[in-house]
Amino acid sequence: VRSQSSSLAALETPCLLLDRGILERNIERMQERLRLGGVPLRPHVKTTKCVEIARLMTRGQPGGITVSTLAEAERFAAAGFRDVLYAVAMAPNKLEHAANLRSVGTALTLLIDNVQMARLAGEVATRRGIRFPVLIEIDVDGHRSGVLPAPEVLVPMAQAIHATPGLELRGLLTHAGSGYDCDSLKGIAEVAERERTIMVEAARTLRAAGLHCAEVSVGSTPTALTASSYAGVTEVRAGVFAFNDLMQTRLGVCTLDDIAISVLCTVIGHHAPQRRLIVDAGWTAVSQESQLHQGTRIYGRIGDARGRLIEDLALTLLNQEHGIVTRLSGCSIESAEFPVGTSLRILPVHACATAAAHDRYHVQRAGSDPMEVWPRFGGWTVPG
Amino acid sequence: VRSQSSSLAALETPCLLLDRGILERNIERMQERLRLGGVPLRPHVKTTKCVEIARLMTRGQPGGITVSTLAEAERFAAAGFRDVLYAVAMAPNKLEHAANLRSVGTALTLLIDNVQMARLAGEVATRRGIRFPVLIEIDVDGHRSGVLPAPEVLVPMAQAIHATPGLELRGLLTHAGSGYDCDSLKGIAEVAERERTIMVEAARTLRAAGLHCAEVSVGSTPTALTASSYAGVTEVRAGVFAFNDLMQTRLGVCTLDDIAISVLCTVIGHHAPQRRLIVDAGWTAVSQESQLHQGTRIYGRIGDARGRLIEDLALTLLNQEHGIVTRLSGCSIESAEFPVGTSLRILPVHACATAAAHDRYHVQRAGSDPMEVWPRFGGWTVPG
Repeated sequence: VRSQSSSLAALETPCLLLDRGILERNIERMQERLRLGGVPLRPHVKTTKCVEIARLMTRGQPGGITVSTLAEAERFAAAGFRDVLYAVAMAPNKLEHAANLRSVGTALTLLIDNVQMARLAGEVATRRGIRFPVLIEIDVDGHRSGVLPAPEVLVPMAQAIHATPGLELRGLLTHAGSGYDCDSLKGIAEVAERERTIMVEAARTLRAAGLHCAEVSVGSTPTALTASSYAGVTEVRAGVFAFNDLMQTRLGVCTLDDIAISVLCTVIGHHAPQRRLIVDAGWTAVSQESQLHQGTRIYGRIGDARGRLIEDLALTLLNQEHGIVTRLSGCSIESAEFPVGTSLRILPVHACATAAAHDRYHVQRAGSDPMEVWPRFGGWTVPG
Repeated sequence: VRSQSSSLAALETPCLLLDRGILERNIERMQERLRLGGVPLRPHVKTTKCVEIARLMTRGQPGGITVSTLAEAERFAAAGFRDVLYAVAMAPNKLEHAANLRSVGTALTLLIDNVQMARLAGEVATRRGIRFPVLIEIDVDGHRSGVLPAPEVLVPMAQAIHATPGLELRGLLTHAGSGYDCDSLKGIAEVAERERTIMVEAARTLRAAGLHCAEVSVGSTPTALTASSYAGVTEVRAGVFAFNDLMQTRLGVCTLDDIAISVLCTVIGHHAPQRRLIVDAGWTAVSQESQLHQGTRIYGRIGDARGRLIEDLALTLLNQEHGIVTRLSGCSIESAEFPVGTSLRILPVHACATAAAHDRYHVQRAGSDPMEVWPRFGGWTVPG
């Protein structure tokens, strides 16, 4: 967390800052790691939701992206990203939207883990005269969703999809979310290796049954940055690595200096009895994601206007447009040290959630570059 | 939570539903209560951020509104709401924006609780040839911000504002946030009465010192709905009452049937080993606000597509685009009971946070009315 352009002072707070130098370093780190591992990156754009950043993430890569909403698929397809994996299990009410995207030439791949959805997707595809490429979601660790990789479950499911007109079985996908529960890099690497071996074995099972399985898609930032092997994997999905955050820092896959975004805010008050500063960034600007830090529940760590960490301060309470900053030591905060009008930066606990609170990035690079604004979008449908 | 129009099935999920019948009943309840109390409502539009709803909230009222951002002030002023109270302590970097709004005729009142900010606001006002009406924020319960109502603190502050060219001291404001910490209606009513007496006494102190104090502004939904008297109060601010939520239900100021918004979502999977349903609404659609319910941390309660509560289900885990629904009893959920594609509604823990995740309301009224879309906005500056 460093660097500042001279136009920072002209910004109204709260707003979201993005350090382009850190962003590019984070992206290069992931790309270099996967290059050595011999596997391409299919960046997940759900964290960043920004065309400019997706261009940086796909540089030197095949160009395919992962999305979490059809709004992302539509926006990125309009910006030229035509190979789009929608990595959330499909719902019936989204099939026409997906078919619209497919009809205009987007290679939109769907995720399906049950036969009812396969049947409905096939019906829409057939009626619309298209085919949906399909991945089957595999549950490798019981953390969320997907089918179990047991052959007696997986093979009938794959056969059902294979036999459904309008669907084209492309392979398997998983997300080893349990990497986030680990307390060591070694533990995360073990999750990654277990994810890999289960998925490679599941792919082998499908192929042995005479089914097509071109894709073996895995990933998450922690596992991608710690895996010892990608053998048999055809692509790695990850997204938060571009920004990093306090969750990734705690996992040990990055340091505080690797966090590319921060919320710029302003001291708007002091409350001596409660030993607190009041800043103009609440949960609307920061999100309600929290973590324990030195025994205290915090919503962010605090840096000065230039991004230099102020070790003893933390964001400890949030209202809609108010944030409360206190000393972790419990000591009081002198108003003379942080007068009203002082700019501070909040380092996010969870970059996906904090970024989701904003509609633009104020992009800066160390040195004298002028600040740019990169738009960011949210939502589930693109306003007509 | 009831009613559905026939076009519900055409919506892509997740999306935000607003029951107009419940909304209007909630608004009428507050207006009627304050009418009996002889005090006008200055609705806080931070919860709803929607011009159509603000028009309902101000019907029969003087028309002034309360906002939490200058973006709200700007959007609502453009829609004809010219009497706007910005109820967050001012920051220096927002003064030019505020002056722009004031210059085009918006009666924008600022909140100030320190002399540094008074001086800066006065300088900008003088340079721009305008005057800012100012309220002083009072801390009645130590819950967040404001100055203590002690005469030796308050009178010098008021005198400083009164003496600052470009500022016009209008009165006092407080927000008794500690009402949210109460576990009985009687406790909330006591907070309301303490807030009132402290504020009325503070106003008397100012007037005794020869200072102007036309406004005594108090409020929050829980205190507004329980206060035994508004004597000496000139306006009540409240906003969440229009929607209500599980927090208000727990406080006892409304029932589940009074919650006007819900997130429509769809079952996208089942996970038998974990006894869970997976729905397509994550924290992007619901927010991360939680509460304890029957000993379990929940992010929302669950209704069917028509809004009828399913007592034993709750939203117990959220990822970005996935929600996990489990039975509070711990029993398993049969996929036949909630097949993939089933529509469910999520009742929000905190309406402000859930609404903030959406850019539009899908408005329905019991019966056969067609569904309308009312836009909602967020952010801190209006995109140029």
